[in-house]
Amino acid sequence: MEHETTIRTRYSETDQMSIIYHANYFTWFEIGRTDFLRKIGITYKDLEYQNILLPVIDVGCKYFIAAKYDDELIIKTKITTLKGARIQFEYEIIRNTDNKLLAQGYTKHGFVDKALKPVNFKKKFNTVWNMLSQNLE
Amino acid sequence: MEHETTIRTRYSETDQMSIIYHANYFTWFEIGRTDFLRKIGITYKDLEYQNILLPVIDVGCKYFIAAKYDDELIIKTKITTLKGARIQFEYEIIRNTDNKLLAQGYTKHGFVDKALKPVNFKKKFNTVWNMLSQNLE
Amino acid sequence: MEHETTIRTRYSETDQMSIIYHANYFTWFEIGRTDFLRKIGITYKDLEYQNILLPVIDVGCKYFIAAKYDDELIIKTKITTLKGARIQFEYEIIRNTDNKLLAQGYTKHGFVDKALKPVNFKKKFNTVWNMLSQNLE
Amino acid sequence: MEHETTIRTRYSETDQMSIIYHANYFTWFEIGRTDFLRKIGITYKDLEYQNILLPVIDVGCKYFIAAKYDDELIIKTKITTLKGARIQFEYEIIRNTDNKLLAQGYTKHGFVDKALKPVNFKKKFNTVWNMLSQNLE
Repeated sequence: MEHETTIRTRYSETDQMSIIYHANYFTWFEIGRTDFLRKIGITYKDLEYQNILLPVIDVGCKYFIAAKYDDELIIKTKITTLKGARIQFEYEIIRNTDNKLLAQGYTKHGFVDKALKPVNFKKKFNTVWNMLSQNLE
Repeated sequence: MEHETTIRTRYSETDQMSIIYHANYFTWFEIGRTDFLRKIGITYKDLEYQNILLPVIDVGCKYFIAAKYDDELIIKTKITTLKGARIQFEYEIIRNTDNKLLAQGYTKHGFVDKALKPVNFKKKFNTVWNMLSQNLE
Repeated sequence: MEHETTIRTRYSETDQMSIIYHANYFTWFEIGRTDFLRKIGITYKDLEYQNILLPVIDVGCKYFIAAKYDDELIIKTKITTLKGARIQFEYEIIRNTDNKLLAQGYTKHGFVDKALKPVNFKKKFNTVWNMLSQNLE
Repeated sequence: MEHETTIRTRYSETDQMSIIYHANYFTWFEIGRTDFLRKIGITYKDLEYQNILLPVIDVGCKYFIAAKYDDELIIKTKITTLKGARIQFEYEIIRNTDNKLLAQGYTKHGFVDKALKPVNFKKKFNTVWNMLSQNLE
């Protein structure tokens, strides 16, 4: 399963190189994975209400072509790893006008509670776990 | 009492006009008022631990000269109003190299608890209230 | 003419009060006005190519109800003033689920060139000027 | 050569997990490398005036302990690779109160001109190149 979300870049995301500031790609990744989860029936907001947080523990991004102001971008998201206390997403940022790959990245997350203590997600939230594992790449 | 904090603008704060994106001035105002409070003996972090939050209810800013990347700026902060459930701060952003006034703004805040319900701050936190009122403009 | 744009709040826009950080409303205003301009046939990106910038010179926002993570918001945008070297937009932020007014604000802009010098927009860009003035509130 | 810069986290950088939003670490890395360059006699702003930009082409960060609001952090920066058209920096984020390592990351950059075309930096800016290579790890 690979999910696609479309966004338009914002002026506030540009920098004085006249490109999108690189750290913003990670906020797009976040939009991609939230939207992915929503599509398979999981609202991240609800997970938090149930005392499950997904803080980021490892991220990376390679930038091939700079995104610019007002670009329409497709965020492609998939889950590549799912373990007892960990989940990994991978992302591609595609420019809509010409289908070029602008950037590629990943984020790894732990399953923790609000005190930031690890949670055995598979055990405690088996239904959600199954929804995720059915959508592994 | 007027308090001064010095910051340096960040590359991430620029936009493609090669000036600092206007919304960032409000994050500088926040640095100014946090630092002001710290100086008079109040840590905003501790206020939150004691279940007092200061959400923003009204803000404004006038921009005279654009701040640019790598500028050293002085944030001048003062308290101009203090009432039972409200506090107002005013700010000036000064460029350090030539002492020019770049922008001027204000923020109004309510005193609320974590459920965002108003709190009679003067009654409940009389010591802190007195520290604030002694530092009114 | 009043234009509506729908957005969803991002996790990156929240703060530790569990509400949206106040400065982000100004980036939403920017989305609203860009989208407004696009709808009446003006691409802000193209204006910049033609050496017209619209830096912000005065802004304000009143906050009534806090926007939260994952809220769907409607940004209502209109032009309220248009003069030789100035334009003013007004905005309302509406929560989609219950139609409540969360915040209300304005931004004033100058017409300048890339050197940040004022431009007589009405004279130099009369066609665009007319498009704008036909869409004044 | 390893350079240290001290910053304090901002309220605007928190998210509703009550930790610093992960993408902000990359803006701290940027502060670290700008400050590193300044210390060895290179102002990044001046490089840009001379038509040299350093866009990011690859980044990564591992998060061990979450930074929180109002933390004082030390950013440790060093140059680990310097080639004809590439430079790599590595960073550590240390919490000042207890000297704990919060996060560790890297950024790789190309040397390009304002049209984003690669530049042979070593040839064209040999003096600056030598300043950098003397400060390689």
